[in-house]
Amino acid sequence: MKIFFSLRQVLLGSISLCIALATMPISADEGMWLYNQIPTELLQQRYGFVPDQAWLDHVRLASVRFNSGGSGSFVSSRGLVMAYHHVRADALQKLSATEHDLLEEGYHAKSEADELPCVDLELNVLMNIRDVTDEVNAAVTPELSPAEAYAARRGVINTIEQTEFEKSGLRSDVITLFQGGQYHLYQFKKYTDVRLVFAPEQGIAFFGGDPDNFEYPRYDLDVCFFRVYEDGQPAQIEHFLSWSEDGPQDEELIFVSGHPGRTSRLNTVAHLKYLRDILYPRRMDEIRRREVLLKTFAERSLENERRAKDELFGYQNSRKAILGSLAGLQDPVLMAEKQAAEDELRAAVQRDEEMRAKYGVSFDAISETLEVGASVTVEYGLLERGTAFNSELFSIARTLVRMAEEDSKPNADRLSEFTDAGRGSLEQRLYSAAPIYADLETVKLADSLGMLMEQMGAEDPLVLQILDGKSPRARAAELISGSQLADVEERKRVAAGGAEAIRDSEDPMIALAKLVDPRARALRTIVEEQVAEPQQQAYAKIAAARFKVLGTTTYPDATFTLRLAFGAVKGYQEGDTWIPPWTTIGGAYEHAEAHGNVPPFQLPELWIERRDQIDLSTPFNFVSTADIIGGNSGSPVVNQAGEIVGIIFDGNIYSLVLNFAYTDDLARATSVTSNAILEALRNVYDADDVADELGH
Amino acid sequence: MKIFFSLRQVLLGSISLCIALATMPISADEGMWLYNQIPTELLQQRYGFVPDQAWLDHVRLASVRFNSGGSGSFVSSRGLVMAYHHVRADALQKLSATEHDLLEEGYHAKSEADELPCVDLELNVLMNIRDVTDEVNAAVTPELSPAEAYAARRGVINTIEQTEFEKSGLRSDVITLFQGGQYHLYQFKKYTDVRLVFAPEQGIAFFGGDPDNFEYPRYDLDVCFFRVYEDGQPAQIEHFLSWSEDGPQDEELIFVSGHPGRTSRLNTVAHLKYLRDILYPRRMDEIRRREVLLKTFAERSLENERRAKDELFGYQNSRKAILGSLAGLQDPVLMAEKQAAEDELRAAVQRDEEMRAKYGVSFDAISETLEVGASVTVEYGLLERGTAFNSELFSIARTLVRMAEEDSKPNADRLSEFTDAGRGSLEQRLYSAAPIYADLETVKLADSLGMLMEQMGAEDPLVLQILDGKSPRARAAELISGSQLADVEERKRVAAGGAEAIRDSEDPMIALAKLVDPRARALRTIVEEQVAEPQQQAYAKIAAARFKVLGTTTYPDATFTLRLAFGAVKGYQEGDTWIPPWTTIGGAYEHAEAHGNVPPFQLPELWIERRDQIDLSTPFNFVSTADIIGGNSGSPVVNQAGEIVGIIFDGNIYSLVLNFAYTDDLARATSVTSNAILEALRNVYDADDVADELGH
Repeated sequence: MKIFFSLRQVLLGSISLCIALATMPISADEGMWLYNQIPTELLQQRYGFVPDQAWLDHVRLASVRFNSGGSGSFVSSRGLVMAYHHVRADALQKLSATEHDLLEEGYHAKSEADELPCVDLELNVLMNIRDVTDEVNAAVTPELSPAEAYAARRGVINTIEQTEFEKSGLRSDVITLFQGGQYHLYQFKKYTDVRLVFAPEQGIAFFGGDPDNFEYPRYDLDVCFFRVYEDGQPAQIEHFLSWSEDGPQDEELIFVSGHPGRTSRLNTVAHLKYLRDILYPRRMDEIRRREVLLKTFAERSLENERRAKDELFGYQNSRKAILGSLAGLQDPVLMAEKQAAEDELRAAVQRDEEMRAKYGVSFDAISETLEVGASVTVEYGLLERGTAFNSELFSIARTLVRMAEEDSKPNADRLSEFTDAGRGSLEQRLYSAAPIYADLETVKLADSLGMLMEQMGAEDPLVLQILDGKSPRARAAELISGSQLADVEERKRVAAGGAEAIRDSEDPMIALAKLVDPRARALRTIVEEQVAEPQQQAYAKIAAARFKVLGTTTYPDATFTLRLAFGAVKGYQEGDTWIPPWTTIGGAYEHAEAHGNVPPFQLPELWIERRDQIDLSTPFNFVSTADIIGGNSGSPVVNQAGEIVGIIFDGNIYSLVLNFAYTDDLARATSVTSNAILEALRNVYDADDVADELGH
Repeated sequence: MKIFFSLRQVLLGSISLCIALATMPISADEGMWLYNQIPTELLQQRYGFVPDQAWLDHVRLASVRFNSGGSGSFVSSRGLVMAYHHVRADALQKLSATEHDLLEEGYHAKSEADELPCVDLELNVLMNIRDVTDEVNAAVTPELSPAEAYAARRGVINTIEQTEFEKSGLRSDVITLFQGGQYHLYQFKKYTDVRLVFAPEQGIAFFGGDPDNFEYPRYDLDVCFFRVYEDGQPAQIEHFLSWSEDGPQDEELIFVSGHPGRTSRLNTVAHLKYLRDILYPRRMDEIRRREVLLKTFAERSLENERRAKDELFGYQNSRKAILGSLAGLQDPVLMAEKQAAEDELRAAVQRDEEMRAKYGVSFDAISETLEVGASVTVEYGLLERGTAFNSELFSIARTLVRMAEEDSKPNADRLSEFTDAGRGSLEQRLYSAAPIYADLETVKLADSLGMLMEQMGAEDPLVLQILDGKSPRARAAELISGSQLADVEERKRVAAGGAEAIRDSEDPMIALAKLVDPRARALRTIVEEQVAEPQQQAYAKIAAARFKVLGTTTYPDATFTLRLAFGAVKGYQEGDTWIPPWTTIGGAYEHAEAHGNVPPFQLPELWIERRDQIDLSTPFNFVSTADIIGGNSGSPVVNQAGEIVGIIFDGNIYSLVLNFAYTDDLARATSVTSNAILEALRNVYDADDVADELGH
């Protein structure tokens, strides 16, 4: 896959409609566990090993999250960070000039002076966790209406975050767990000066390209190294992971410390059907539309290809991921299992008078929220998620328009993405120097305005206002060429001017954002108050019922926060074929050969040249039964000694169903071995400086 | 583009929802004229040249239609046929083995013995045209209900076709013109022994690939040559076109004799909105879905790519074509013009008492049919058009199931594709030896069954029966691996067994076709009786009104039958740039260079080697103002002397709007020059034998 996860989706207006509560007991190597709620009994019983608190603190503090989506880890005392390759792609895509395509060529800084500063990259390290469930719940009293409850909860959360931020200087996020069953305050140390140290060529990092994505066996060196700086100097890091030169061993217990983005395991069956029948099919149409659009744009010239490549890859990746999830939901066997588990829980609730009174109606309450959700899903997607305005410039304009309005309110009352606590991260994105390409913007906006006409109706009054008597193509060209927002200074000027600057602005993109905002905000309010809030309340009750019936040793659905998973290095049986747990570097050459040595199956020149100097028997990629999902890419895989034996970069095609239920029949997490990374650094890239620093 | 047109769409159950009547007067070089209704005054006035009857008969009899969609012409007395390259691709795709990919390599038969027989290819030459409007209308009396009227019309048409076929031995089709304003009997001579003589490499025939498709300037040698045989000998051809060695001249009058597939110029505005808001967006989602699916399949291996290539190209081509049409309809300016013209016609009808009585309600009647159409469009698409069953084996099974049932009825009562007159062509397709790939079939069917679940509902009773308790993927695998219909002999056995063989069959694909058929047929009946029939009646009235108001010198919408268009060789002004009327062969080398010389911008090796022997200043591709649309690909472009100066293979991106209205501002038809063809045959391919035969 590229199991990264877009934090922007969460931050910029994408409110999850997918929140819920598990109805099955824990099995096998299941679980994306909270660091403060580790399954000690399960580990003891399955593997006879339980990490102690020092081990847990050390691994947690060595784990990092990227704001661009994805995980990483500290691997030296001088701030060296190991990440998966796509993080680099994202950061460099924004930097690289036409002439010098770092994305293709890879990079190796010969000295610290050569380390390349990255645009927009932010790293978070989880310093503290504190349970604030009682504080949050105290603010949301039973007599409040859903709208009041929503506002009250948002208020108390904003206040806690702000207070704790002011106290500690740490980024402070209140995380909703178990869909509202628990609230934990997570405090993060931020690093924003991040520089690229080493990255291999795209050709080996993503060898096999989109065709091999989510497939196994694999042969990818999907890794890169950054260094974080503080005050212009490499940061001094206390907790960094040591390095295993031997790599993973067959059947050995391994841990994965990373940030799974989102799962829907605790969803009610009605909620799963909503995903299957409404949300996913619609999302798939959208993704395919954008994929085809970008592909067509990319094929017109080499420069177009460079401009569109990274975004295109994102859609291809999402398409496979959602398609895999959809295939799971379209399997009547999985749905029957889900239904049986839910029936059992519901029956248990019905049998107990007290539970029936407290939790009995929760399942039906979820279904009611889904009906509201379904009724606004088209307009909400177009106007509030903004799929009708597929343009960077529009996103910037909307952020400016909303920031001016939100900043006039008390912190506690603002939309979540405009609170004081998140301002630093918001501004980093808003004032990003990443280039914005007018041609690509125009093509994207024209197509999405066409989609708006199709889906909301060509004669809808708001649509007519948006198009202003022009065709989507003409209107997009006018908006993109007329806007000044590609200029970062202009954004700063407008932001500094506040509500007045927005009122007086003649920028056509700002005018468009203003035009759309009342209806978009109204839709957001409906979703927040009539979908998200009652859903959260109902799921919190289902969670409580489940704790009573099945016990509390469990884990919440993924929330793009730090989790610990575990499992064994293990192959699998696919039909008649046994897929061994690892491939070798030599296998990469055979794989290239079998595909005619053409892109994306063409090895980089250096790999061809150095073939004789490489130990071809070195394990290259390996699979394990650890419980992962999108967002886990880049997670360190560590052994019992806490040493890195690999880095997660993918899951096989069967792992996509992990969105809804854990299984170790065929589902596997895919990693690069630590020994292949060493072999490549030393014998392909002459990067002994990096190799020597690992674990030191 | 590749302006070919799938006749299969018309024959196998795709009933057009797009039939209508023009509301604007003829302008400029407009018109896809009937050979028996040539605009002599217009030609005289614009060009001072009117072809005489002998010229018309000669060019008509030298024009051919391919059953695979597309046009061609006889170019020698010994049966040599010039076609555009894709016809060859389609015919050879079905032949070529993995090892020997003729699609890529091109072909040149050194002697007649080496000429390669093509699978499934049928050529039609239009021998006679007779107006049978009165005969058809006599059978459809005003007191009949729509269902009766539909049956009566189908009956009389089937009878005329059968009688005339028996009389003459010629394929006899009654063609509906002016959406029911006129009916003409077209009689065709068929050639079914068609052999490939010469084809250039895919790399030059489709140089620039999908990215350059529908673009201009272009540099494609999109041509190939077949020879038709009769009784095992090259056919003796009386009417063949002579060859111009000089090629096209700037501003000269040219004619295009070919088979435009379908236009919607005479549609009411309500009908255009139906296309804009319902039919096209839905079709686009379908096409993008299939495009992405095939692309993903193709990328898994070189062999997959070969298997999927031709079908993939078809979707890419359709996607661009429909998108262009949709962009036209989403332009408020074009829609306002259409509306104004319609308002004018409606006002004229209202002013005249007799017209008001006879034709007054016709426009509203169209709108009513569209509402019915919209209400069944999803199910009709899935079940009757068969988009839920994207599989060759399913199409075969359905044909067998329906043939058994239809053959028990009198000829006049059968579904149009099962009449005696069409049986030869039907059997040629049904018993085609073209290979069917189980892996590709499974992938396609699985995806389309998933689409069925999404669109008709996972819990629809028929959907549950179709899926039989399995996931789309598992069900598709079971159906494809369980069916015997890949074997042509098995198809013949089932067909010979008639209704009994269908009843007793244990083939799972036949069982599926039987399961779906009652509902599919019911939907077809609704569309035929409540949409197509009343639409046809209403459009016939609008046509009559239009003849009264605007006169009869006009042409019907395209119907994939032979038409004559005319225009001038002419460049165009695009923004600040003047696009000259032709490119040169030398330009192809520059174009390749500018795109890094990688596919699809990589010239074939032979072209690199022979560069010094080619006259690089030879005009290569040229544009003209002739009025064309999909289906015209392969049409000969002839000068006043009736000599071939080129072959149509594409239109520029602006030409797509010709679907709805003619314009010569920017819209241009794109052709290969006759002189480039000669230059390539002689100086690239050493094919002097072919060059010498042209025009002799």
